[in-house]
Amino acid sequence: MSQLIKKEVRVFAPATVANMICGYDILGFAVDSPGDEVFMKRTENPGVVIRSIEGDDGRLPLDPDKNTVSACVKMYLAHLGLEKEVGVEIDLIKHMPIGSGLGSSSASTVAGLFAINTLMGNPLSKEELMPFCIEGERLACGHGHADNVAPALMGGITLIRGGEGLDIIKLPVPQELVAGIVFPQVDVPTRDARQLIKEKVALKDAVIQWGNIAGLVSGIFMSDYDLIARSMQDVLIEPTRAILIPEFYEMKRIAEEAGVLSFGISGSGPSVVAISKGHEAAQKAVDAIQQHLNEQGIECLQFVSKVNVEGPKVLSQS
Amino acid sequence: MSQLIKKEVRVFAPATVANMICGYDILGFAVDSPGDEVFMKRTENPGVVIRSIEGDDGRLPLDPDKNTVSACVKMYLAHLGLEKEVGVEIDLIKHMPIGSGLGSSSASTVAGLFAINTLMGNPLSKEELMPFCIEGERLACGHGHADNVAPALMGGITLIRGGEGLDIIKLPVPQELVAGIVFPQVDVPTRDARQLIKEKVALKDAVIQWGNIAGLVSGIFMSDYDLIARSMQDVLIEPTRAILIPEFYEMKRIAEEAGVLSFGISGSGPSVVAISKGHEAAQKAVDAIQQHLNEQGIECLQFVSKVNVEGPKVLSQS
Repeated sequence: MSQLIKKEVRVFAPATVANMICGYDILGFAVDSPGDEVFMKRTENPGVVIRSIEGDDGRLPLDPDKNTVSACVKMYLAHLGLEKEVGVEIDLIKHMPIGSGLGSSSASTVAGLFAINTLMGNPLSKEELMPFCIEGERLACGHGHADNVAPALMGGITLIRGGEGLDIIKLPVPQELVAGIVFPQVDVPTRDARQLIKEKVALKDAVIQWGNIAGLVSGIFMSDYDLIARSMQDVLIEPTRAILIPEFYEMKRIAEEAGVLSFGISGSGPSVVAISKGHEAAQKAVDAIQQHLNEQGIECLQFVSKVNVEGPKVLSQS
Repeated sequence: MSQLIKKEVRVFAPATVANMICGYDILGFAVDSPGDEVFMKRTENPGVVIRSIEGDDGRLPLDPDKNTVSACVKMYLAHLGLEKEVGVEIDLIKHMPIGSGLGSSSASTVAGLFAINTLMGNPLSKEELMPFCIEGERLACGHGHADNVAPALMGGITLIRGGEGLDIIKLPVPQELVAGIVFPQVDVPTRDARQLIKEKVALKDAVIQWGNIAGLVSGIFMSDYDLIARSMQDVLIEPTRAILIPEFYEMKRIAEEAGVLSFGISGSGPSVVAISKGHEAAQKAVDAIQQHLNEQGIECLQFVSKVNVEGPKVLSQS
């Protein structure tokens, strides 16, 4: 294991929609698009170097101890006792904006760890990579939570039990579930979005929320789209976080008019997600939302995708 | 519909374990034993009469407007516009104690409504009987909630979404799931047990609770008993309600030692439930708990049963 088995690898890791509207801090799913790419190449000299970052508008650090991708790769190598023997050079290609609520840092971290593990000949399983991914989240957001890294690494829909714990359960994916995502280009840092949330909640609201969560999980297992639609309602977190997102309730109205199952915030926002049965309603919703936002002078990006069931993927290797 | 099709009927309806440990106000399941019986016979004169009640120690009213069984039967007949035409006489045989936390009033109400509907030739579906059952709960406990009547009427494991709403979802039943129930003969009225519960909860605890609920529902769908065991933990309600139940934590220790999946309070108590994979651990747990309680001078009843998947059942008719 002291040598890298492969010379170079290019890896894609998917963006993720944390919370899945009603499942704050416990549910999330991956999408086929967008996602980030890492190109990793072995070098003669030991050490981890970030050679380039594309698509970050110069916001991410190149210092390998500060950049979460390289920092996690270093942790991985240290865990295997190889930090003094192995050398790699990283190009990070970001296809999605930072601070979008789409698990941007998670996708990069997962891509980086999947890349180094591939170069090493896959000594660790996905489950074994998870602690490094979570540590990357702690570096990136100050909060070591798995709600984005779990679906980004495992693919599909994931459930995280036990707060900060590592009990991650893969749920089945209803085949026709499609996510239409709109990222309005306004800045909502995760830290601020978290700080807005109240520490205490009314038990009666919590009961409604966990009834919805149980309904959503049941709907997922039964591919019951009506039940998914009825259940995917957030009475606790959305009312607070929606304040930070321009035009939230108008976007919601537009999405409902387009016939989606549900509409809400992706992670801590500002991206929003319209979840639908089939492609058509999701596409219709994001088109109408984009048009509305543009009329308000707000630039935005849109993505429409099925649930990604694979997680990170090797695009090329040699 | 103005005539009763049958002359008489005897119906059994099952006891129920509300909350299923972590799913306060949303989950519940029925058991094969204990349960209540209603014997209902048509009479010449219109009106609803309670002829006898057995097993209630004289605690339940015979006045047909005050007794929840007869009151619900009257509502049912009024709904069909037949209160002035149809007459029945009711014998209520209670096989389980009142105020036990086993859905005693729900079982009687469900048995009564199932009996009158059977005598009428089943004009209403189970779903259509539900509102009458919930109204019965309101009369009995001052709180019109479906967490006992839903599993008593539908059988199996039920999920209730939406607080007081009527969105009831039948979950699958893992085949080897067995409930060992112990009823310590101390009095914990539902109203008091509800009043003890705090109106506000910490969001971080709520997140752990709904992660557990999602884990339990997933475990139920996958028949994953390990996941069921990990998830069936109540961090929110049990710490408060356990105060009212003598020897609660010692009983929990004993149950865990016996190898059950989980142990907690049935409904609002004082009955407790040990949920296990297979009969053996549940039986071992309830035997050891009973012995311990007896040593403390506390009388108790015990029941060991698989999940009842049928709900109310006609025992005889003519």
